[in-house]
Amino acid sequence: MELVTADDVRAAAARIRGHVLRTPLTAAPEGAGFLLKPESLQPTGAFKLRGATNAVALLDPVRSGYGVVTHSSGNHGLALARAAARQGVACTVVVPEGAPRVKVERIRGYGARVVTVPPAERLAAVEGFVDREHLVPVPPFDDPRVIAGQGTVGSEILEQSPEVTTIVVPVGGGGLASGVATAARAARPRRVRVVGVEPELAADAAESLRAGRLVDWGPERTYRTMADGVRACLSERTFAHLAERLDGIVTVTEDEIARAVAALAHGARLVAEPSGAVAAAAVLSGRVDVAPERPGATVAVLSGGNVDPDLFARLVATA
Amino acid sequence: MELVTADDVRAAAARIRGHVLRTPLTAAPEGAGFLLKPESLQPTGAFKLRGATNAVALLDPVRSGYGVVTHSSGNHGLALARAAARQGVACTVVVPEGAPRVKVERIRGYGARVVTVPPAERLAAVEGFVDREHLVPVPPFDDPRVIAGQGTVGSEILEQSPEVTTIVVPVGGGGLASGVATAARAARPRRVRVVGVEPELAADAAESLRAGRLVDWGPERTYRTMADGVRACLSERTFAHLAERLDGIVTVTEDEIARAVAALAHGARLVAEPSGAVAAAAVLSGRVDVAPERPGATVAVLSGGNVDPDLFARLVATA
Repeated sequence: MELVTADDVRAAAARIRGHVLRTPLTAAPEGAGFLLKPESLQPTGAFKLRGATNAVALLDPVRSGYGVVTHSSGNHGLALARAAARQGVACTVVVPEGAPRVKVERIRGYGARVVTVPPAERLAAVEGFVDREHLVPVPPFDDPRVIAGQGTVGSEILEQSPEVTTIVVPVGGGGLASGVATAARAARPRRVRVVGVEPELAADAAESLRAGRLVDWGPERTYRTMADGVRACLSERTFAHLAERLDGIVTVTEDEIARAVAALAHGARLVAEPSGAVAAAAVLSGRVDVAPERPGATVAVLSGGNVDPDLFARLVATA
Repeated sequence: MELVTADDVRAAAARIRGHVLRTPLTAAPEGAGFLLKPESLQPTGAFKLRGATNAVALLDPVRSGYGVVTHSSGNHGLALARAAARQGVACTVVVPEGAPRVKVERIRGYGARVVTVPPAERLAAVEGFVDREHLVPVPPFDDPRVIAGQGTVGSEILEQSPEVTTIVVPVGGGGLASGVATAARAARPRRVRVVGVEPELAADAAESLRAGRLVDWGPERTYRTMADGVRACLSERTFAHLAERLDGIVTVTEDEIARAVAALAHGARLVAEPSGAVAAAAVLSGRVDVAPERPGATVAVLSGGNVDPDLFARLVATA
């Protein structure tokens, strides 16, 4: 399989400029000795806007006339809706029955058509739109355009902290980690390590990388974690990127994730969703070594902040 | 009285570069039609780092050898401690007995000497250090170096949003509002309005500006607001700046402040302290007009995020 290159990430960075926020590096809770890349500050609240924007920008003019389609009521659906709207492309988002109404309304707010189907029919519904209406599918992570777009999180970190030696990223479907690990190759001759983080309740990537082959945990196992944004399992494509390029992977407990959400709010003044907090959780609980005297050496990606208000209120109250 | 100039602000911006974060403009809660300047993301959690950094950088070499002193257990004390440490200058912070231990520990964490005195003796204690140890006092707002530094919030907004027409800022002692209103003058021939916001329970600046003279409300009145960072009253210096340069001033209720803290957390993924949320509160509750189709036209300064964890948990839970 052909992997995304550092040049692809560079091209994506030029393409998405002005459409996404160049998030700053901000201080982690005091004394913790690392920096954060708060992608929660993107207009849609998560890094997904980068990949979606790159994918839409790469459509050829004929196909873009038909519009794009995806199935996701989460951060990718929101991102594709906004990316398409900004670039004048029609967007259809297939959401499962029972998806939180607030999320659906946000997607609609960006002007997308929302189609509700029973959960089991989501993939078929997307295929139906591709066949009947010639819509272009933009999947959440199993796509070179999306991976290159997410990689711009990494290329920005390299530019923003010349002293960075370790980047810590959440791993769900693996698009962000694949992109960032690809971008890190552009740091040569500098050596920048990229470490992935999963909830131990959805550690399919760690098992896959150990086994040397894709191991799918299935929703019955990954849905145990509250970190809903990283329940997806790797695809063959993201597995290939991570097997080749990721320097390590660690897992965090639900309790460590919960405590990280509270620490980020109280100590770094940032609202993170549980999935968005897993990289910080790994550093805060000592699973990734830092050099406290050089905070810029370690950067943890805070990947998103779209957390249910009630859950967030509970997590910050139990700190 | 000689007022700070737009050139002073420009010089401050060059001086503090690399010492403070150039905060981005980020999206307000969806549909609200304005942008935020989240100074809560500064390493110390508030804009105060700008003024303190500028003041320390302007010390002459002889005086800087003695060190700086201030009385504040809040955001200015924290800011001066860090600004001094970064620039190799000794710092003494006088705090009142009973100040929250967590704040005192953070100030100490930056290497400052902390001296605890009865509340009524704070000013005298600072004067004592000036007399006996030749320390240089750096007040929280009544100082041209500090006002020029805070003004860089405004000059950055002008650069970051070429379409801005209204900047909304909290008013406590008036240093931030004075600096931003000064910076806005550099926008010519563009016209950028600066609107101040106070809690109605600490609306001394609104009354002073109406009366055309400084009216001091005193702590017995201003301490009724939960927005502890804007309880201070104007000084003659900040009154002179605001009387000359501020385009308007509005007030917000405690309930509007509380709802803004919750809305910023849930809708913009940012942790604001009550004082930090007053400008957003004014826009969200319709006290400042926005042009929803041009979100970049209105920028509200989210001035700080150092909120007591228990208070924050309560505010986000009642949303």
